[in-house]
Amino acid sequence: MRKAVVLLSGGLDSTTCLAMARAQLFEPVCLCVSYGQRHQAEVESARRVAQAMGVADFRLVAVDLRAVGGSALTGDIPVPKGRSEAELGAGVPETYVPARNTLLLALALGLSEVVGARDIFIGVNAVDYSGYPDCRPEFIRAFEALSKLATKSGAEGEGFRIHAPLSGMSKAEILREGVRLGVDYGLTHSCYDPSAQGLACGSCDSCQLRRRGFEQAGVKDPTRYSSEPRS
Amino acid sequence: MRKAVVLLSGGLDSTTCLAMARAQLFEPVCLCVSYGQRHQAEVESARRVAQAMGVADFRLVAVDLRAVGGSALTGDIPVPKGRSEAELGAGVPETYVPARNTLLLALALGLSEVVGARDIFIGVNAVDYSGYPDCRPEFIRAFEALSKLATKSGAEGEGFRIHAPLSGMSKAEILREGVRLGVDYGLTHSCYDPSAQGLACGSCDSCQLRRRGFEQAGVKDPTRYSSEPRS
Repeated sequence: MRKAVVLLSGGLDSTTCLAMARAQLFEPVCLCVSYGQRHQAEVESARRVAQAMGVADFRLVAVDLRAVGGSALTGDIPVPKGRSEAELGAGVPETYVPARNTLLLALALGLSEVVGARDIFIGVNAVDYSGYPDCRPEFIRAFEALSKLATKSGAEGEGFRIHAPLSGMSKAEILREGVRLGVDYGLTHSCYDPSAQGLACGSCDSCQLRRRGFEQAGVKDPTRYSSEPRS
Repeated sequence: MRKAVVLLSGGLDSTTCLAMARAQLFEPVCLCVSYGQRHQAEVESARRVAQAMGVADFRLVAVDLRAVGGSALTGDIPVPKGRSEAELGAGVPETYVPARNTLLLALALGLSEVVGARDIFIGVNAVDYSGYPDCRPEFIRAFEALSKLATKSGAEGEGFRIHAPLSGMSKAEILREGVRLGVDYGLTHSCYDPSAQGLACGSCDSCQLRRRGFEQAGVKDPTRYSSEPRS
């Protein structure tokens, strides 16, 4: 089996992405990045998911992005709540973390070289993409081109492939594919602003996209929300 | 004055790069990345350099690359010592940190967006480049192209410029330029494997390149070495 580095946040998308990498017969090396996000519950979810899916190599890298700031996920800006569907689709939200996916892919690239992987999986999603620029297919292609120039392996002739299998899928399609592959979504975490007990708020953009995805997929949502939806 | 993010390690190259950014009338925001390197003395040098050069905004971001490993600078591989000039020029050395400059530039890119800078300075050097693939001009150009796709500012039309002013300079040329700009090289640190007292070993690749640079530039080397050169 060929190794692949899979970026795993513990959310719905990256967990489905991990299941898809395994279905393609890759041996996953999971990379979870703790970047000072409010929703540290993600990291615990990532561990649980990796364990449940029998991942033998799980790496946690801590990067403290609070020194950089500029995002509702790492700084003092409040997480937006109860935004309408039109608001969800308009522009780049406050939860954008500047250059986050470039950073995640840089770490995945370094780890790939170290473990001898030539494939990297990232669960970005261009349909329900929340307006993040670094979820677009053209960004992924540019990073793939960069990876060849950035590394020893690349300079020696062997490039890297960046897989973004969720890129063209809706949240409902992602969920249906995950269910088909046996993913237990009860282990995953999506909320940007969970309660101290780890309950999902139900009204941040991420909760709203998740909840709607389950509805549209006709799949029972196992998430424990702290409140009823506001929208 | 326009702001520029300057990657500052506290070494000879990045310190000269900072002096050159200031000479171009940029207001520097210095970004120092502590990545679990053996030579933590670098970080203290970076602070001293920034203070001596009157930098008002100095950010330290910690990323623990020891979970990734694969380098003499972060892992258990010994730092090569006393290599000959031919060995220094051949291939990628063990001190290569996989995808390090991609990671540094990703962090600089995020910070640039947050502080409103459109210019990033990195002190990579393609002549005395120690064989690192991510010091080559083609890598820098590819990252510049990526930066436009990776960010909110880029997606909104404003790209970033990655400046690598040392790219075509020899170590001696860098030193002469720094001296001309008033750099105090006594504050800088280059050694990959300093003693507990912070003295430079004198024989790792970085010490050798530094020492030879001072000789060739005809500039007095203020470095305190723990031993005489072995080469």
